[in-house]
Amino acid sequence: MPLSPFSSPIYVTRPILPDLKLMNEQLADIWQSRVLTNYGSKHKLFEVKVKDFLGVENLSLSVNGAVALLMALKAMELPVGSEVITTPFTFPATPHAIHWNNLKIVFCDIDPVTMCIDANKIEELITPNTSAILGVHVYGIPCDVKKIDEIAKKHNLKVIYDAAHAFNTKIDGVPIGHYGDVSMHSFHATKLFNTVEGGCLVYPDESLGLKLYRLENFGIVNEEIVADFGINGKMNELQSAMGILTIDMVKEETEKRKKIFDTYNRILSQFEGIEVMKLPENATNSYQYYVIRIHRDKCKISRNELYEKLKGFNIMARKYFYPLCTEYYCYKHIKTGPLPVANKIKNEVLCLPYYGDLGVENAEKIAEIILSLVK
Amino acid sequence: MPLSPFSSPIYVTRPILPDLKLMNEQLADIWQSRVLTNYGSKHKLFEVKVKDFLGVENLSLSVNGAVALLMALKAMELPVGSEVITTPFTFPATPHAIHWNNLKIVFCDIDPVTMCIDANKIEELITPNTSAILGVHVYGIPCDVKKIDEIAKKHNLKVIYDAAHAFNTKIDGVPIGHYGDVSMHSFHATKLFNTVEGGCLVYPDESLGLKLYRLENFGIVNEEIVADFGINGKMNELQSAMGILTIDMVKEETEKRKKIFDTYNRILSQFEGIEVMKLPENATNSYQYYVIRIHRDKCKISRNELYEKLKGFNIMARKYFYPLCTEYYCYKHIKTGPLPVANKIKNEVLCLPYYGDLGVENAEKIAEIILSLVK
Repeated sequence: MPLSPFSSPIYVTRPILPDLKLMNEQLADIWQSRVLTNYGSKHKLFEVKVKDFLGVENLSLSVNGAVALLMALKAMELPVGSEVITTPFTFPATPHAIHWNNLKIVFCDIDPVTMCIDANKIEELITPNTSAILGVHVYGIPCDVKKIDEIAKKHNLKVIYDAAHAFNTKIDGVPIGHYGDVSMHSFHATKLFNTVEGGCLVYPDESLGLKLYRLENFGIVNEEIVADFGINGKMNELQSAMGILTIDMVKEETEKRKKIFDTYNRILSQFEGIEVMKLPENATNSYQYYVIRIHRDKCKISRNELYEKLKGFNIMARKYFYPLCTEYYCYKHIKTGPLPVANKIKNEVLCLPYYGDLGVENAEKIAEIILSLVK
Repeated sequence: MPLSPFSSPIYVTRPILPDLKLMNEQLADIWQSRVLTNYGSKHKLFEVKVKDFLGVENLSLSVNGAVALLMALKAMELPVGSEVITTPFTFPATPHAIHWNNLKIVFCDIDPVTMCIDANKIEELITPNTSAILGVHVYGIPCDVKKIDEIAKKHNLKVIYDAAHAFNTKIDGVPIGHYGDVSMHSFHATKLFNTVEGGCLVYPDESLGLKLYRLENFGIVNEEIVADFGINGKMNELQSAMGILTIDMVKEETEKRKKIFDTYNRILSQFEGIEVMKLPENATNSYQYYVIRIHRDKCKISRNELYEKLKGFNIMARKYFYPLCTEYYCYKHIKTGPLPVANKIKNEVLCLPYYGDLGVENAEKIAEIILSLVK
């Protein structure tokens, strides 16, 4: 029996939404207090809830992940014009945060298995002008955080992680935000856990909290003292209210996504032309993205052809992360060494629809359609 | 009869809030669409409503005013390290936006009447390295926009306005955003018109819109093209929904504030030691702040003493803008010429409680208390 297209478009993600009645109750509280932002009671409660959920002590909520990453880099107080080593295989927000901080972007190749920055290729890029490493836990797969920590200590570098995809990821049972100097989680609507827009920074050193507070609130100490350069990076009360409700939904959504993950892996791993998503044994899955790799030499069609053909089935997959950041118009001028792994993988990856409400049956159908196209 | 304190604290401002039922209906729409951000239907509708309200053609909504100002400066493509002439008599967000853009802050003295940057003192600060003027329409009182335009044309400089206080201000009937290259309005909860947090940029040159769109959305052109450096400066659907409702309340709130403005002016202008708020004849009032100036030589007590004594009456006035930005810990090192006017005025100004629900009777009482303290 030929597989038929879905009746309406299936996108890569779909936000979880709390019961509207509960959200209206939250709004009623806010209307009652007339405090809409600037660290109201919703912000305070939500901060505690996220800390508890992640099992971290030091956390700052932010208006969105990109502004949070901007502040994270600013908080490191890196010399203007110094070099930050990062991955080209990421969302544009990552290198943009370096550029906006007036630092120099140095792109490093990625690991063929984790697809994160290749820790074994970082040291050869270090110069006297290098000040930091900005790693990305791409698809929630952790970077080699231990090796990166070693390199950073040896060369006196700061380590920042774009952990937008790695909310609640743990390595050997330890929250991922304990590694490096500061990590950014995103709470954007496209993420498993969302506050409409939003994000947070997590950091092992408690003293960074005051610095980040000032960076997100104009550097204000009190009515008469402004101590530091700061922008407005605050999360407001409506975002916080949303988070208070959605964080209680994460467990259930994660369980639903786990079933979809297992379904995709079970069906797609039957064919050697497709490499299914795997996490290191010592890491937990954030269930944020589900990515496959299409091995051109073993498949009937290319990743690009598969992507186009899936549209015909109303399956709107995404080629995250194609193209590489080095190919962006604004970064083309940056000289890099060869990036063979990143240049290979960018043509292999495809993110599939991945949200709880998709259901196992639809995931099965998507997997079967993919198999039928590539085999 | 001695004047008695208010029974609970009266703050400088209080946000207008739409009917909760209407807000719940907005949320129901959003829940229905499952589009929480990234230019959904609320964003589109709100943008049209703000354009219509202001009578402007080119406008970009932003997540907040500070991020908007950051993007406004970035959009000007000023040479790194070039000089931007601005006022020290403003909220810290103004100079911070220059600093975060890696530009050099040059503080100029202010006009003794408007308290905005003194257009007659700008030219003496221009060097071959000057790239822009960043004016602030402080308290909604317009800068000398025509003179500034002339200077900018003569010296080939960009002009950016921090119009956070000047929402819906018109000069000779023309929206204030028509002056200069780009103007930022704030929709923060403390503003007359609010979207919880939020803001917008207004600009006469339509072509700036695409540049700003890219700056606020990661530089993304489409799924495969990233053309420019961008952060996340987008306004989300909840903010937009709030704005759709609150913008319809602006007219009524403005009328209420006008009565308070007239009340304060009527009572406080009776005493020559107090200078009441005045706008140039060709400008409309944004009714955003109500500021008085205490002339020390004619008053029994100083502005600082008045501020403290008012607290005893539960009147929480604010010393906007004291201290000057030049006195901030982070800007102390910047060399400036003498700033005699700013240094005088910073010790005179006091912003009084100013929001529709305050009512004329309370405004009368506040004015009488002030008179009794200073006369």
